Amino acid sequence: MSEELFQPAPHVLSGDTADVYFLRTRQVMEAEGLNPTAAMEIFPHRDGIVCGMREVTALLRKALPQGAEVWGLEEGEPISAREVVLRVKAPYLSYAVYETAILGILAHESGWAQAARECVEAAQGVPVVSFGARHVHPLVAPYMDYAAIVGGCATASTTLGASMAGKDASGTMPHAMIICFGDTVKAAVAFDKQVEPEVPRIVLVDTFLDEPQEALRVAETLGEKLQAVRLDTPGERGGVTPELVQEARVRLDQAGFHHVRLFVSGGVTPERIRQFLATGAPVDGFGVGSYITSARPNDFTADLKEVEGQPIAKRGRIPGITDNPRLKRLI
Amino acid sequence: MSEELFQPAPHVLSGDTADVYFLRTRQVMEAEGLNPTAAMEIFPHRDGIVCGMREVTALLRKALPQGAEVWGLEEGEPISAREVVLRVKAPYLSYAVYETAILGILAHESGWAQAARECVEAAQGVPVVSFGARHVHPLVAPYMDYAAIVGGCATASTTLGASMAGKDASGTMPHAMIICFGDTVKAAVAFDKQVEPEVPRIVLVDTFLDEPQEALRVAETLGEKLQAVRLDTPGERGGVTPELVQEARVRLDQAGFHHVRLFVSGGVTPERIRQFLATGAPVDGFGVGSYITSARPNDFTADLKEVEGQPIAKRGRIPGITDNPRLKRLI
Amino acid sequence: MSEELFQPAPHVLSGDTADVYFLRTRQVMEAEGLNPTAAMEIFPHRDGIVCGMREVTALLRKALPQGAEVWGLEEGEPISAREVVLRVKAPYLSYAVYETAILGILAHESGWAQAARECVEAAQGVPVVSFGARHVHPLVAPYMDYAAIVGGCATASTTLGASMAGKDASGTMPHAMIICFGDTVKAAVAFDKQVEPEVPRIVLVDTFLDEPQEALRVAETLGEKLQAVRLDTPGERGGVTPELVQEARVRLDQAGFHHVRLFVSGGVTPERIRQFLATGAPVDGFGVGSYITSARPNDFTADLKEVEGQPIAKRGRIPGITDNPRLKRLI
Amino acid sequence: MSEELFQPAPHVLSGDTADVYFLRTRQVMEAEGLNPTAAMEIFPHRDGIVCGMREVTALLRKALPQGAEVWGLEEGEPISAREVVLRVKAPYLSYAVYETAILGILAHESGWAQAARECVEAAQGVPVVSFGARHVHPLVAPYMDYAAIVGGCATASTTLGASMAGKDASGTMPHAMIICFGDTVKAAVAFDKQVEPEVPRIVLVDTFLDEPQEALRVAETLGEKLQAVRLDTPGERGGVTPELVQEARVRLDQAGFHHVRLFVSGGVTPERIRQFLATGAPVDGFGVGSYITSARPNDFTADLKEVEGQPIAKRGRIPGITDNPRLKRLI
Amino acid sequence: MSEELFQPAPHVLSGDTADVYFLRTRQVMEAEGLNPTAAMEIFPHRDGIVCGMREVTALLRKALPQGAEVWGLEEGEPISAREVVLRVKAPYLSYAVYETAILGILAHESGWAQAARECVEAAQGVPVVSFGARHVHPLVAPYMDYAAIVGGCATASTTLGASMAGKDASGTMPHAMIICFGDTVKAAVAFDKQVEPEVPRIVLVDTFLDEPQEALRVAETLGEKLQAVRLDTPGERGGVTPELVQEARVRLDQAGFHHVRLFVSGGVTPERIRQFLATGAPVDGFGVGSYITSARPNDFTADLKEVEGQPIAKRGRIPGITDNPRLKRLI
Amino acid sequence: MSEELFQPAPHVLSGDTADVYFLRTRQVMEAEGLNPTAAMEIFPHRDGIVCGMREVTALLRKALPQGAEVWGLEEGEPISAREVVLRVKAPYLSYAVYETAILGILAHESGWAQAARECVEAAQGVPVVSFGARHVHPLVAPYMDYAAIVGGCATASTTLGASMAGKDASGTMPHAMIICFGDTVKAAVAFDKQVEPEVPRIVLVDTFLDEPQEALRVAETLGEKLQAVRLDTPGERGGVTPELVQEARVRLDQAGFHHVRLFVSGGVTPERIRQFLATGAPVDGFGVGSYITSARPNDFTADLKEVEGQPIAKRGRIPGITDNPRLKRLI
Repeated sequence: MSEELFQPAPHVLSGDTADVYFLRTRQVMEAEGLNPTAAMEIFPHRDGIVCGMREVTALLRKALPQGAEVWGLEEGEPISAREVVLRVKAPYLSYAVYETAILGILAHESGWAQAARECVEAAQGVPVVSFGARHVHPLVAPYMDYAAIVGGCATASTTLGASMAGKDASGTMPHAMIICFGDTVKAAVAFDKQVEPEVPRIVLVDTFLDEPQEALRVAETLGEKLQAVRLDTPGERGGVTPELVQEARVRLDQAGFHHVRLFVSGGVTPERIRQFLATGAPVDGFGVGSYITSARPNDFTADLKEVEGQPIAKRGRIPGITDNPRLKRLI
Repeated sequence: MSEELFQPAPHVLSGDTADVYFLRTRQVMEAEGLNPTAAMEIFPHRDGIVCGMREVTALLRKALPQGAEVWGLEEGEPISAREVVLRVKAPYLSYAVYETAILGILAHESGWAQAARECVEAAQGVPVVSFGARHVHPLVAPYMDYAAIVGGCATASTTLGASMAGKDASGTMPHAMIICFGDTVKAAVAFDKQVEPEVPRIVLVDTFLDEPQEALRVAETLGEKLQAVRLDTPGERGGVTPELVQEARVRLDQAGFHHVRLFVSGGVTPERIRQFLATGAPVDGFGVGSYITSARPNDFTADLKEVEGQPIAKRGRIPGITDNPRLKRLI
Repeated sequence: MSEELFQPAPHVLSGDTADVYFLRTRQVMEAEGLNPTAAMEIFPHRDGIVCGMREVTALLRKALPQGAEVWGLEEGEPISAREVVLRVKAPYLSYAVYETAILGILAHESGWAQAARECVEAAQGVPVVSFGARHVHPLVAPYMDYAAIVGGCATASTTLGASMAGKDASGTMPHAMIICFGDTVKAAVAFDKQVEPEVPRIVLVDTFLDEPQEALRVAETLGEKLQAVRLDTPGERGGVTPELVQEARVRLDQAGFHHVRLFVSGGVTPERIRQFLATGAPVDGFGVGSYITSARPNDFTADLKEVEGQPIAKRGRIPGITDNPRLKRLI
Repeated sequence: MSEELFQPAPHVLSGDTADVYFLRTRQVMEAEGLNPTAAMEIFPHRDGIVCGMREVTALLRKALPQGAEVWGLEEGEPISAREVVLRVKAPYLSYAVYETAILGILAHESGWAQAARECVEAAQGVPVVSFGARHVHPLVAPYMDYAAIVGGCATASTTLGASMAGKDASGTMPHAMIICFGDTVKAAVAFDKQVEPEVPRIVLVDTFLDEPQEALRVAETLGEKLQAVRLDTPGERGGVTPELVQEARVRLDQAGFHHVRLFVSGGVTPERIRQFLATGAPVDGFGVGSYITSARPNDFTADLKEVEGQPIAKRGRIPGITDNPRLKRLI
Repeated sequence: MSEELFQPAPHVLSGDTADVYFLRTRQVMEAEGLNPTAAMEIFPHRDGIVCGMREVTALLRKALPQGAEVWGLEEGEPISAREVVLRVKAPYLSYAVYETAILGILAHESGWAQAARECVEAAQGVPVVSFGARHVHPLVAPYMDYAAIVGGCATASTTLGASMAGKDASGTMPHAMIICFGDTVKAAVAFDKQVEPEVPRIVLVDTFLDEPQEALRVAETLGEKLQAVRLDTPGERGGVTPELVQEARVRLDQAGFHHVRLFVSGGVTPERIRQFLATGAPVDGFGVGSYITSARPNDFTADLKEVEGQPIAKRGRIPGITDNPRLKRLI
Repeated sequence: MSEELFQPAPHVLSGDTADVYFLRTRQVMEAEGLNPTAAMEIFPHRDGIVCGMREVTALLRKALPQGAEVWGLEEGEPISAREVVLRVKAPYLSYAVYETAILGILAHESGWAQAARECVEAAQGVPVVSFGARHVHPLVAPYMDYAAIVGGCATASTTLGASMAGKDASGTMPHAMIICFGDTVKAAVAFDKQVEPEVPRIVLVDTFLDEPQEALRVAETLGEKLQAVRLDTPGERGGVTPELVQEARVRLDQAGFHHVRLFVSGGVTPERIRQFLATGAPVDGFGVGSYITSARPNDFTADLKEVEGQPIAKRGRIPGITDNPRLKRLI
């Protein structure tokens, strides 16, 4: 299923998700017999990295006739504000109705990928996992996770999103499961008994008791099988802090559980990642959610710059093809 | 097709877009024979309005067994930060894997709806149209447009989004079409000739010439048939300003074109809408794009608050059902 | 002993704590046979309340000869910046060497009293207790506690300070005691067994376990005898928050312990008190430490304004007695 | 008398200035027969320098039994926030009631010493004298002056404070004396006649006339015997400024009084000292008062970290002895 | 001479102070035989009051032919940003070269007048005198003083400026004169002896001695003849402060000189005037200099809005005559 | 005429533009027979460059008797705040009444010159022309232009101002002329036909049409004779931006008009000049108006420092001649 997600959905192909004026443009120009070869260029509004090229290319491959040319950057490359990242040269009506979809795919995914990149760069090698599916519409949750992995995340929490990027999904257990069991240790024991051995045993330790206390109880029960504990302390208890991680580490070490790793989630941002690293807190992994999902889309703009070989542009733009040696022929 | 969009997609129903730990929770609890009746409550992080209830209810209707209870607010109602807006009471495993999807639908759509609401309130009766499809992934563009209309927009630019809310899509013509024709008047004449008469004649007038000059040229050609002109001046020419609208109005009026209305788009925000109104600029409609699409999702949180009739909660939350007389029985 | 604290100490009386130039002034003027009747006026630098008048009056009563006049405000009265709060009229050499001590007593105590007043006003009737002895030198700790009570505190933590103001000292138990017992419940039981029944049973509940959990354990053990619990959560666990107080209240109430009151300490300031009250957190008492002890002294200045009945003053000051109808004859 | 000031006062030794809960702790634990050997560690809240160790050591020497260990830094050493600066290892009840006094001594004196240090560092070799006795309670005025000298001040204005640090007190004359004489020159002449020759002749020159004018009058009268003049211009006349010092210097030099030095007081802070030096104002000494006396105490915290040889700590702290190679064995 | 200053100077009339392109415009249009009747409108950039209308009208009266119309506001009226304050309707070449001069006169004088107005409004009836001639070129110093009086000043310091507004100039004596006499009292006596009796005796009292001291010396010498003293304390002595004025008042009153008034100058601004009044300082007059002279000109813009009876305007402006019922026919 | 402008005007020489107290000083001192040789020093309040020395020297040459000395800096030299830039040594009454004029000339012209310098430095070699005559009174417009050229401007817009500095005035054509012709191209053709060939053909292109469009129309008509176009876009159309300049350049180049240069005016400041240069916009010249004309005068102060060879000064100033080796003998 995941490969399918790179192919255009039927209602995208039909233009039903496009701005309606493109449908009318097609209607008018076809009736007038006007379909010039036109070059469209696309540029982003902010610096960042580009994501969505793979999906856009699949859409254009479906749409364009023989002889069309598409030039662009590759998935995940860095981009600068107002730099041309995609150029399509083809009879205009073959792609007119897809301008909305192309811009939307690039805007949304590049926004997510860049936010993920900021976290990954802040983390300096400590793995970052995308945990934000709960903050976006489920139809785009896999695309968001895919973009996060393009941006450098180690993996993501949705099966579909992770598999689009060739990864296995990652996750521990929800508070709800622990509440159903009524006790973290009981939940951990059941998890360990029932789940395939290749799934890492990572236990959430902030549900009922103070975290270091709970971490010790779980470690004493699962012993060597416990791979990590996850700290997701709610804001009402101060959130996860560098001091909490350090204390958990020392108390686990003093009890001999050096092998148990510490995973941090909840309100994680690049700024907070840097604070953790600056204080030397021994974090073994970060889960990031809303920093990525609340990233503003990196809006893209499309301009016709050449019609039938002649430079042209609307007011405010430079007429003619823009030179960008970084572009590669994609189609 | 648009009604279908309120029904859960197959890969949402299968849990493939869920956080993987909910799949594992189901696996563990089923194996352990644990499936208590549990009450889950959901609250937002910010004040605003709720959107997505219609889609969430459709999903729960598919998922829950007989005897389950769902209480919630109605689509578009105002909400306060941390107020319970949805309560599900049912055997936990019947809905466990949908927590991710439910939260994501509400977060994304409520974020968009609230941003639209802010524009609509600023506009004090002047119609606002959602023009942001180009800034979001095409799979959610219709949901974004739907949410914008729930938030008060008059209509939206995508066929599918507008129809989800029972509206006709709205649009004029793109710069690209005018560039293909090489002249705004030629494009306007062709549009007028080819498009069904019930579609309003609204012409974009900033492509090649100074706006009032172009507006006069178009008005002189289309005469009474011209319903409106759209000003979408690029930032490189100062964007659309109250002074520009006033000047266009006077110059059209001085030439006798009192019937031609003025539609403004490009970087429109509540703040800018208020500036237009404060200066008395005679705007007849606003097109809003990125203010809505770059709204942060209004993140929601789900908590188990009761298990088998007993109040319970994780640390930091108040155990037991939260009283909220605004909730109505939905299922 | 506490009444003695209002009497001047021998090394204060001897002038050994005075600026040395007053000793030299006495030496020079005595040698020159100069000892005019002079009126000295004293004013504060900031608005606030005055504290230290009782101690200053005791000192002047010791120092001044027959016929001297002292006019002043009463302990705890409000004062304005630059308002005359004390006037001494006597042969100059009888009080010259005490200018340093008089100003210092008023500055230090008025600073503390005003800070306490700010807390008490913020608390709108919820009792505030002075807990700051650990932040000041032990020789002035009682004076700080006395000033805090003059400023409106219900009582204070030092025996001597409380008794200076006619109060019983207040306190619960330190973390150190609980650590020695190794368990909060064991410490609470021992305290209950050994301490006179009139001392309230107030147990500190943040030492080893999450606060509501610990509060419930203590309440289940001491039952009706438990008067209150104190929340003093360290910054490493987020400090005490309104949400924590509310949750502790609900969890205690759900378990039937409606009679157990909640006492909050740790980083308490007027600003934080107002936040607690604004959120409706059910706090039954506040312990304030460093806000009071880190208050800047309200510096006072002394000016000679009349010598042998003639108005005089240094440059920048108005010569002659300043009219202030609020002053009462003290000596 | 001054050496006595390093010895604990009777009411400190009795615990009457302690938080009352320590007295109750002693009562409970004695009754329960519990008196474990415990290690207490103490750390400051801010960076700075430590002061009060001499007095604390004297107190512990009185209190602790044979076999106790005390490790700490030396008077005046630099300290970092949260660095352990003192460790006591002894039967807990031998020192329990002194926690309040130990923390208070260190907090108050370290706060003063650090503020003095900031002035001294700003002054780059120009002597700084502590003039703040009038802003603190007379019982701690000597400790404040002692701490200021530990922080680097050349000396201080109280006899007792200066002698605690092995210095002679410094001072000129008060405005009040000049007002009694009615004229600065008359006061200066009387001072010169009556005071021991080893006391420097430093005359205050802002009482009645413009400073340079008065300085010249005094210099013309005392001639070579005049060592310095003090500028203490009130805020109502603009305070002392670099320009005033420069002008006074030039006018004295033009009249041949190159030997008369200039001493500045009144509102002096590190920031203002830096401004004086930056403009090259020829200041020969600074008197600092409220910058030192209004310094916030550098609050200290005490934690039990080991009981009967086992690492332990309250939540939020790291259990066990903290390694700090800078500590030396004091007892 | 002063009336002459309202007439255009020869090199203004000749166009030598105009932007050269107006000279070329005249040359081209005359050669082309083009001289249409045109309406020019002028508006300011900021709110304020208008000054310069009298001079502009005199210039236009010289320049315009029979039949021309000039409409405008009167000298000193309030104006709003972008409000039309002057309209000229005449053959264009009759006034083309004076656009520069008209705009410049209005800009410079309206800027000064508005700044003066702000001082006068702040002073609430206490007289304000324009003292800024020394901060502007002498050729415009009279115009600046005239504008200040239009803005509400009681009078000004230059003979010519004051007389343009029908006032007598006001002034005391400069520091330089006192320095030449070597003593303020000697200078005051000479002034009193030599100057016509109708000139008020106002003596500057900050040159050599502290101001209240000097004021008393002068008052004792001149007695009833002394009308006022001027305080102009330099910044190096803290400038004039409310406290200084109050002290001078008290010391004069204590010596019986109730009749001597106090005049304040030096760095006076509306903000400082408000501070004086707020503290109740008994100021009898303010001298204002650089606040008025450093006012930004209130730039004006001229637009042709009608040519041969047809509405016209450049891009960005509304074509046609602007309705403003406040304008009166001036020519 | 322009050389005359450096000579004092009759009403300046007569003292009618002076502060009236200087006239009274002359009257008093003459009557008292007092006319000592006095040295007056003048210093500025801010850093900058000095302008007005040429005019001041001409005035002093007229005023001073044989034997007088004048020392000063040269026109246009850099100056520091409070640095002595002019010293006059002569019988005091020979120059007393000119203090006002001397200070005013230096203040006003130095303020303008420094503002011009800031623009010129920002422009890094791109010519800057003074266009601000319309913002100042016409009597000082030439002095402002002269000062701007002293500050580094290439030339200025007034004939008289430019000629004072030995330059030809520069200008294009006003909007008013184009409006009279009704079309930019018609105005340009007439200009080209009627004006001397040595005047550059520079055409203003923002009056009626979008700038690049108009620039192309003019270039197509005048061809090689067109030297430059001026962009002066009003704020209502976004002002001139780097992007507009770049687009105009490209569109002119694509049409083969590489020789047409681009001149920018309207709201130009050093900050905006730097923005243009930072973006690489191909600007060939800047016209600056209100940045220069709204510069605060750099106020100057005059002090008598020596009378009959003796150092003297008012309070707050250093008595005696100030050493400044940069001063040269001017008279």
